[in-house]
Amino acid sequence: METIELYGNVYASDCPTRQVLDRIGDKWTALIIGVLEEGSQRFSELQRGIGGISQKMLTQTLRSLERDGLVNRTVYAEVPPRVEYALTPLGETLCAPLAAIRLWAEANIAEVSAAQTVYDSQG
Amino acid sequence: METIELYGNVYASDCPTRQVLDRIGDKWTALIIGVLEEGSQRFSELQRGIGGISQKMLTQTLRSLERDGLVNRTVYAEVPPRVEYALTPLGETLCAPLAAIRLWAEANIAEVSAAQTVYDSQG
Repeated sequence: METIELYGNVYASDCPTRQVLDRIGDKWTALIIGVLEEGSQRFSELQRGIGGISQKMLTQTLRSLERDGLVNRTVYAEVPPRVEYALTPLGETLCAPLAAIRLWAEANIAEVSAAQTVYDSQG
Repeated sequence: METIELYGNVYASDCPTRQVLDRIGDKWTALIIGVLEEGSQRFSELQRGIGGISQKMLTQTLRSLERDGLVNRTVYAEVPPRVEYALTPLGETLCAPLAAIRLWAEANIAEVSAAQTVYDSQG
């Protein structure tokens, strides 16, 4: 097991990298990390920044990112308590790869939509 | 609608880029495109190359990639018919961003696993 954890292979079904790949590829992860790239944010700021994310999905995804060591959650002892989320150094290393994926989606949506129209017209 | 399709914003909930982001971030997409980067493949070759993928999931994901214009499916008139899958030029532009995501998962699994252990021990 130790060797698997130190040297991952996403093509092996029993390798723990497979689950990590699943989580970092998740669209909510890509969107949350994109917002946190601009600096630490409160929960409400994240929710405003990401159209259509539910409170439950944001809570779940932030918890998963915290567990994976990608996001830090800091509670400031104020009244009411202020909670802020920020990228860890490990989380920051994901910014560039995920930005490339987001930009690909934005840059190629016209071509993808055109392909879908052709495919669907062929029944 | 036309402007949305030509200039996407993944942070808008009603933007079609959101669904594209969801599909290209899918772990099976990342794994299939990684295998096709080496050249065209038959269904059985893809299934062998990707540990743990079911026939149903491979069929579904290939169909979705074909519909999005990322993969071509070619049927050769032999007996029995030979079917091969290959990346389109658009699909090839996804290779580098998805390789970066796969490599990130493989390179950082030890650090992610360590963070999970700490998180879980805190109850």
